[in-house]
Order: sequence, then C-alpha cells, then structure tokens
Amino acid sequence: MIDVSIIGAGQTKFGRHNDYDLRELFTKAATEAVEEAGITAKDVQAAFIGNLSADQFNSQCHIAPLMVDFAGMKGIPSTKCEAACASSATALRAAILALESGQYDVVMAAGVEKMTDLSTAGVIETLAMAADQTFEANPGITFPGIFAVLAVAHMAKYGTNKEQLAAVAVKNHANAVHNPLAQYQKAITIEDALSSRMVAWPLGLYDCSPITDGAAAVILVRNKAARKYSDAPVKIIASAQASDTMNLCDREDLTSLAAARLAAQDAYKQAKMKPKDIDFAEVHDCFTIAEIIATEDLGFFKPGEGGPAVLEGRTQIGAEKTINTSGGLKAKGHPVGATGVAQIIELYHQLRGEAGKRQVSKADIGLAHNVGGTGATCCVHIAQRW
Amino acid sequence: MIDVSIIGAGQTKFGRHNDYDLRELFTKAATEAVEEAGITAKDVQAAFIGNLSADQFNSQCHIAPLMVDFAGMKGIPSTKCEAACASSATALRAAILALESGQYDVVMAAGVEKMTDLSTAGVIETLAMAADQTFEANPGITFPGIFAVLAVAHMAKYGTNKEQLAAVAVKNHANAVHNPLAQYQKAITIEDALSSRMVAWPLGLYDCSPITDGAAAVILVRNKAARKYSDAPVKIIASAQASDTMNLCDREDLTSLAAARLAAQDAYKQAKMKPKDIDFAEVHDCFTIAEIIATEDLGFFKPGEGGPAVLEGRTQIGAEKTINTSGGLKAKGHPVGATGVAQIIELYHQLRGEAGKRQVSKADIGLAHNVGGTGATCCVHIAQRW
Repeated sequence: MIDVSIIGAGQTKFGRHNDYDLRELFTKAATEAVEEAGITAKDVQAAFIGNLSADQFNSQCHIAPLMVDFAGMKGIPSTKCEAACASSATALRAAILALESGQYDVVMAAGVEKMTDLSTAGVIETLAMAADQTFEANPGITFPGIFAVLAVAHMAKYGTNKEQLAAVAVKNHANAVHNPLAQYQKAITIEDALSSRMVAWPLGLYDCSPITDGAAAVILVRNKAARKYSDAPVKIIASAQASDTMNLCDREDLTSLAAARLAAQDAYKQAKMKPKDIDFAEVHDCFTIAEIIATEDLGFFKPGEGGPAVLEGRTQIGAEKTINTSGGLKAKGHPVGATGVAQIIELYHQLRGEAGKRQVSKADIGLAHNVGGTGATCCVHIAQRW
Repeated sequence: MIDVSIIGAGQTKFGRHNDYDLRELFTKAATEAVEEAGITAKDVQAAFIGNLSADQFNSQCHIAPLMVDFAGMKGIPSTKCEAACASSATALRAAILALESGQYDVVMAAGVEKMTDLSTAGVIETLAMAADQTFEANPGITFPGIFAVLAVAHMAKYGTNKEQLAAVAVKNHANAVHNPLAQYQKAITIEDALSSRMVAWPLGLYDCSPITDGAAAVILVRNKAARKYSDAPVKIIASAQASDTMNLCDREDLTSLAAARLAAQDAYKQAKMKPKDIDFAEVHDCFTIAEIIATEDLGFFKPGEGGPAVLEGRTQIGAEKTINTSGGLKAKGHPVGATGVAQIIELYHQLRGEAGKRQVSKADIGLAHNVGGTGATCCVHIAQRW
C-alpha cells in the first residue's frame, strides 16, 4: 500500500480570472497549500505540475520552474507532467513515486490552467489536440463530437437517454451551489438541461463542462511524518494510471473506457478494496455521459445502470454512492491541468469533514477518477481518513 | 546511490525526417531499445516521455499514450514530462524515481521531437516560449539573442572571445563526423565558423544548434536485475535536477547557470565523486557559449577558463576532459525533447566501448548535463561502466 499523506491543500476559485495570469493563479494555490501544511515554501523539495498546454493557451512552455520561482521555491526540481485533462493526476502520481523513492520528504503536486486567454474557438482547437490529430482532430472532430459518439453508443447499447444525461448536470449543479470555489453556484432543472442549446447531439450546452481558469496544489509527505505537520492529514492508499489507444476507431468498445477499468482494477488491488468500499467519488464528468460511463467503469453500477442510477438519485449526496460532491467538472469548472489535483482536494476536505453543506456523512474512503482526452489516459487515486 | 541500470537504448538518426511523423520516430527508437534489452514491448511497465511542444510543432497534445500505443505498449502508464530542452532528462529522472519507488521493474525513458513540420520562424517563436513570455519573449527576444547576452557577459568578465566560441563548433563537428546518427557528419574549420552568417552578435550560424527531428529511448531496470537482461548494462549512479528563475533579469550572474551548479553539486554528492573523476561528458551546447559555461559550471574548468580550454584542445577526445563525443547539440542535432535521453545514450555507448572512431579510451565514468531553456531547469546524470 502507498505510504503517502496529504498535509495541506490550496485551490483558487475556478472560473474566469481576468486579473491573474498563470503564475499568479499557481502561486495563490501553492501558497495556500504551503501555509495549511504549516511549512514554508523553502521546505518543499520537489514539485510536479500538471498542465495541458500553456503553450497554446498562454504562449508559455517550460512552466514548472517559472511557477515554483514565483511561489518562492526557486532552485527545487520542478517538472511539468502532461496527459491532457488528466495532467495533474499524473503529476500527483509522479509526486507519489518521488516520495516512495525515498529521495524526497516533502513534495508538491499541483496543476494549473488559464484557458480564457484564448477565444472559445481557440480553446476548442487546443482541446482537440488531445485527440489523435492525424485520425480525429485534423479530419474535423472536436471533443463534444467525440463524447457525443460515446453517448450515442451508450444509448444504442443500453437505452441510456437524454433525461439521464440531464440528471448528471442537475445533480452536479446542485452540489456546486455549496462549493464556494465552484465556477457555477447555481442550481438548474432537468428542463433547463434538456432545453439548452444543442452542441453535438445528444449533448447540449448543459452536458458540457465549461472553459475555466484555475489552480490547485497539495503538499505530500510519507505517512510517518504526516502527524508532525497536520492534526488531520489524509492518506493516499492507491495511485494507479493506465493508457489506451487515443483513436476511438481502434477501440473494441465505445461504451466504456479500457484505461479507466485498468486503472480502477489496479487501484482497488493496491487498496485491497472493492467498489462497495468507496464512500464517495469525484469522477471525470467532462461531459455528462462521461460520468455515467465512469460510475460503470469504476464498478459502482453494472454496465448500462449508470444512467438509471443517476436519474433515480442514487448518486446524490448521502445516497447509495455519492458522486461529485464538488460539483464535478460540469459545475465546479474544468481548468484542464488543475482538475486532477482539485479532485484530490475535494476528497481531502470531505475526509477531514470540512466540506460544509456538501459534506458526506460517512466519508472514510474517497476515490478520484481523472480521464485524459477521450480516455487514452486514466488515473485513479483512493484516499482514506486517518 | 541510485540503483538503476540501462539495459537497452535506441535512437533515430537526427535530422530532417520528411517521411516519418512523431509517432513513427518514437516507435523506431522505442523498438530498438526494447530489442536491445532482449525484451518485448509488453514487458515495459511504464513510460516517461520528454517532449517540448508537440502542441506547437505538430498540433498534438497528450502524446504519451499515443506513442506507447503505436510502439506496442498499449495500456501502460505513460506520462509526458516537459522542461523545455531538458524535457527528456526530466523524463529520465521521473523514470528513475519510478524504479526507485519499487512500483515498477522495467521502465522506459524516452524523448521525441519533430520540429521541421513548422517553418523556421514558427520554430523560433515556439522555442521562445521556453523563455519568460511576459518579460522576455513577448518583448521580442529569441533564444539566440538570450544566449548572445550570456556570451557578451562572459566575454566582458573573462575575456572569452569569438575564436574560443568557434573552437566549440569545430570540435563538435569533428566528433560528429564519426557519429552515424548525427545531423551533420561534416568537419568545419575555425575560419568557417568565424565567417558564418551573424545571428545575434557574437553568435554566428555555426554557434547555434540546428532544427532537428529525432527520438531516443532507453530501458531501465534496477541493478540487481540488469545482468539478467544484458551482458553490458550501464549503471546510472546519480540523477539530479534543479531550477532557477526563468527571467535573466532576476539572476545575479549571467556568466554561469545557478541550476547547473546546483544540479552538479547534488549529482557529485550522490555519486561521491568530484569533477576530476569524470572521464567524459555530454554537455548542453545549444549555443557554443553554453558549452563553455557548462564546462565551468560542472567544475571541469575554473570560471573563465572554459574558453581557453576548448581553444587549446583540452576538451577534444582523449584530451584532459573529453566533451561531447557525440557531436553535441551543435552537430549531432537538437530535437529538443529527445536531447536529454540522447545524451545518456552516448554515455551508454561510450561506457560499453562501442562508440567506434569517437570512442574515449578511458571511459569508466560519464556525465550528462541537459539544460532547459536558458537554465531555468538543469539536470545532471552520472553513469558508470559495470
């Protein structure tokens, strides 16, 4: 089992940040994490930073040393990790491996993305680069289109319907009302979702996560040291990552993500747990269909039952399997490179019992499921209350 | 001391590859590495891949799973690491940490870049993104300009001159004549270098590394297992990484890279060695001045002696301190994200005594020095013959 604890976390509000640039967003999250851990920036020995493409969004490569310098950590090894929307989960995993190697004692895992510097068209074009450029993006498909393909396949095979998709959005918006850092703290109805502007059938506007700026950071130490720093550290007990073909055409099944199933299997094995042992989860709902597929891939529901389950309220806070208390990518927002670490931060707050009105009453074990692109990467982490 | 050995290496020819795309270049290098290790692609358990910006060069993010899928390793965790021109040295370091964590037994570290899909202007603009966009690139400075500033500072402080810069290019071109994978297998004279077209004074065309396509990959295992796979594995005995401010304006000294000194200090400490113990080194000569600074930062020569040393032939093959037997970035070529692993591969071949006409006679300990951007990242690795 993995020997790592979170001793501090920091996150910016997710949304449009006209007044802060990339390094300022990072610094805000990193400084909060450092302060909560009761350390100084100089105590951090290495950093791994998730980011999809500051190259495209902000004309800035090589962001890792730039970020740590600005946040007062000049000199430390700092590496950017990129795996599309799963970038900061891979950064978290790299940070965990670095701690497990014994070479470092205090490591930061973080993520940052500032997407609103580009036009919406520019964002869509950049995100499409996380699909296979040769076989998918260049021929013209964009991410809503790709996930619409998955949705149609799921509908055809299992009878999943638009009301079930809408129910994902309604639930996540309801949860986000109680998350002060969420991009949208606004409840919506099934009718709102069903009548929203069509993007790529069957996905309407409310089936899609938004364009977001934001940053998130956590400080990690080995368990033995955790109590020295924190009265309420949170253990990470499993960290798994898997890959798949990028091109949908090469996949055997469009109703499930093989990388998610592989990563989940590995994570459950590491934690010596089964899906039923998970009290709540943050899953990658970049589109509503993705949450339904995620709850099936993670073994929470049988294939085809994810849609009915959400419509029946079985994934609401306190129900059978609580999903996306934070509001998910859908309503909390999805600053691509920051999402993976932000999911872990939601687990951290829930497991410490400090999630306010969105608190899960029994929160002993939480799971985070972060997907890169259309599932060519998936990371699954499991965290536990001490 | 680090417990990791290289058991296989593969590298494409460096240069312009009109007939191969990014994934094909990667697959060629990865397959060679796998075959030399006497394993199959399915035996590789995780991959870390260095790449500066396939985003900009090839409109492709999320390359890591795409590369491993194409190379027959579908399913494994695969993460892109980016730190500008030091990207694949950070990937190598992440791979080493992953092995040291005990979670994997067979790991690939690789790097790939296909730069020639863009125009020269596009390449220059992309590379400039590895400098501080806000304070350097946007105001208009490009990489030759930035390194020209370092050169002028070094000239002013130490009397370094254009003949000494030219001597770096002449030596590295001479070495590359014997490297069949080098971009330029062509000797040049001091006069050629001195009379080449001015790029940014004092740096002429022959002071600059070229625009290059290429890929490089190594297979790593822990030492205990190395002999199972290879009759002549090569040990990595130190792996260090450090960072610095990106913006030159924030640095105290322009004649030395603080991150290089920090990383070197750490690497020597890990290896329990001193600069005099290093038989030969691959150093980051993105511009000729960078090699002179590198040989000083690494402690091979005192500050200010790097220029005279190269002009006096003290860094030629078999002389006092052999530098860049491969031809260096200058003549071997510099496919940015592949350079760090390619340096390690040169150490590997030298330490196995298979470097042909560029073989160093006493090659027991080699060092690789890989710089990101203008020195905001530096990695130093030390490798040893078994």
